[in-house]
Amino acid sequence: MSSSKSITPKNLQRIPGGVNAARGFLSAAASCGIKRTGPLRPDLCLVVSEEPATAAGVFTTNLVKAAPVLLSRSHLEKGSARAVLLNSGNANACTGVPGLRAAEQTANATAIALGLHADEVLLCSTGRIGVQLPVAKMLPGISSAALALKKTPAAATASARSIMTSDSVPKQSAYEVKVGRKTFRIGGMSKGAGMISPNMATMLCVITTDATVPTSFLRKVLGDVTSRTFNCITVDGDCSTNDTVLTLANGASSVEIRTIPEKKVFAEALHAVCADLARAIVADGEGTSRVIELIVKGAKTEADATRVGRAIANSQLVKCAWAGADPNWGRILDAAGYAGASLDPDKVDIAYNGTLAAKNGMGCQDLKGEALLRKIAAKKEFSIVVDLHLGKGEARLLTTDLTEDYVRLNLSEFSL
Amino acid sequence: MSSSKSITPKNLQRIPGGVNAARGFLSAAASCGIKRTGPLRPDLCLVVSEEPATAAGVFTTNLVKAAPVLLSRSHLEKGSARAVLLNSGNANACTGVPGLRAAEQTANATAIALGLHADEVLLCSTGRIGVQLPVAKMLPGISSAALALKKTPAAATASARSIMTSDSVPKQSAYEVKVGRKTFRIGGMSKGAGMISPNMATMLCVITTDATVPTSFLRKVLGDVTSRTFNCITVDGDCSTNDTVLTLANGASSVEIRTIPEKKVFAEALHAVCADLARAIVADGEGTSRVIELIVKGAKTEADATRVGRAIANSQLVKCAWAGADPNWGRILDAAGYAGASLDPDKVDIAYNGTLAAKNGMGCQDLKGEALLRKIAAKKEFSIVVDLHLGKGEARLLTTDLTEDYVRLNLSEFSL
Repeated sequence: MSSSKSITPKNLQRIPGGVNAARGFLSAAASCGIKRTGPLRPDLCLVVSEEPATAAGVFTTNLVKAAPVLLSRSHLEKGSARAVLLNSGNANACTGVPGLRAAEQTANATAIALGLHADEVLLCSTGRIGVQLPVAKMLPGISSAALALKKTPAAATASARSIMTSDSVPKQSAYEVKVGRKTFRIGGMSKGAGMISPNMATMLCVITTDATVPTSFLRKVLGDVTSRTFNCITVDGDCSTNDTVLTLANGASSVEIRTIPEKKVFAEALHAVCADLARAIVADGEGTSRVIELIVKGAKTEADATRVGRAIANSQLVKCAWAGADPNWGRILDAAGYAGASLDPDKVDIAYNGTLAAKNGMGCQDLKGEALLRKIAAKKEFSIVVDLHLGKGEARLLTTDLTEDYVRLNLSEFSL
Repeated sequence: MSSSKSITPKNLQRIPGGVNAARGFLSAAASCGIKRTGPLRPDLCLVVSEEPATAAGVFTTNLVKAAPVLLSRSHLEKGSARAVLLNSGNANACTGVPGLRAAEQTANATAIALGLHADEVLLCSTGRIGVQLPVAKMLPGISSAALALKKTPAAATASARSIMTSDSVPKQSAYEVKVGRKTFRIGGMSKGAGMISPNMATMLCVITTDATVPTSFLRKVLGDVTSRTFNCITVDGDCSTNDTVLTLANGASSVEIRTIPEKKVFAEALHAVCADLARAIVADGEGTSRVIELIVKGAKTEADATRVGRAIANSQLVKCAWAGADPNWGRILDAAGYAGASLDPDKVDIAYNGTLAAKNGMGCQDLKGEALLRKIAAKKEFSIVVDLHLGKGEARLLTTDLTEDYVRLNLSEFSL
């Protein structure tokens, strides 16, 4: 992810508030008992705009799409929305026609509670697949959340907490952005942790902004930014049925995004929020002990670079070596070799934090150098550059190691 | 793998002896100290035919090919061979020109010790990648193995042991095969354990037979059988630099494989040996607690069935659920959805040992049925049928779960 090391533009200032940072947005969480076990935890939230907002979404590429994905996609066709209902504990995926009906019921209940049309409500669900949504449990939660809507950072944090599954921390980001002499705000929340792969897997993200953004541009910029942030992270290579990134722009700041310079500033701001949230997802990957920035360069094409990057980042053996602090360039080269990309093994260089481990496809360090590499591989964060020396194709991925904890956390889904 | 449940043809009888089962083959193991740590263990062996033999090989599809793969492939161009030198502890992969020279040196030394031409010697290596082969340590081992060659089953077992890395048991299989009133024998050994994927990964296999088999047919049948056995197993989805399946046919039985019925019998016999060895590799997969036979049917094409099968069998989340005895059909459907194959989620059925877990893409069991599914998923071996109901494409894979032990075993490669 290109932003992870880049400097935040000068006109962007971090602020608190997550989805409530932008003016005219409110949120609230509720506890409905959707999760099977344990004490009653917040498992539902609403994010609501006081005024009509343009809206856009990016969804999972999995052919198996959850009911909330199908419904939100259809509601977004008109390019606007007012509210998002999110829940954890149940993905409402692989639930057929009854699942779609259940999703519609919750959207209707939300619309009634907020005085909106049902098609102004978007939905996000995460949790166990293949179990019908407990609508009866959710209806009182929707009502109480609608009555408890607040503009505070605390309410935003409660919402971010309510969508956590195996996440260990709520994930939020927000910025105040200068455009000329005016400012607008943009912020968001996300959840991730397991089943994270390029092409967004079991990750939900809601971004709100008080800029005025035409739908057509919002759709385009959200697609571009997503491909360079959320689609460049991978925890386990799995791709979920529920991935969703939603953006609502309500214009409450009266800053209009029309000119090319304004669009550039907005894209940077959206990128900053998405990059923060994507990085937070990787850093909180299930059982993760390290975050690795993987840069593949010198590939024949960008597509080849991406293939090689994903093969490496999703290799169980490579990920295990990272968990073991083993700077094992051999497994990296091996994965590159089966990625399906053009490759000349005798030209490949592999470096950890700038220290070459392999040059021209062969180990190039003496004992002292190897000790240095082991020190780097033992860090909580490091970068790996794989240079294929074949062309100008480049790809950047943010990924994690594969630990025994990951396996332990995923032995069964009953805990989600 | 189609054979795993099939009945051995009547004309095939299991016999002991592994690579020594066929007449005119000898083998011996030696301890050279190639492995970095631990007590001196057997880490090298020779398999030798008394007479010239036709020979064929199938090798890794990884673009990063180890030196022994490059050399063996080149020596096999003429379609014959007399001896195979195998070693564990060092893969001689990613070792560049010095690695190729080292491979040639060991082939030369073997040829001298056995009175052969160097190009009659084939090589197999497995172990750590990226470290130069310790030729000086291997030369005395080659000499002593050459002097110790024996025809006994014990010698074959010692050889099978010498190529083990993280394998927990030696892997051998052999049959006596009736053709009319004559018999020939065929047997082999393999090693596997980690880095096993479709397209053969860090698996070595040597098969010997005393039938007379023309090179052209031997090449064809070995390719066919490999694609239906070794290429249908997956442990971790990684694909190694060193995969090799070699077959030598020395004609010592004076049974000639010429006619179509004879070819059919030979193909069945070769399939029986390869299926045994492939199954043994999966069952001994690193940290494996279960073996799962995965059958994808009703796909639009066979290629689609294979895509879906591999996506499921290589999904970390699916494999973790198997480790946890969780009959989680949702994760299976999720993986099918991102496999890149044609799929209508609302048509998919998923069954464990014949008991439907999902019908038309939705869970279809009551509490009693779910309890039964959990019982099946807790077995050491079970089958899963995923029926896409779109066409006639079918694929069969043998795979394993993903355990904490797998991760522990792969934290570093120093133990191999």
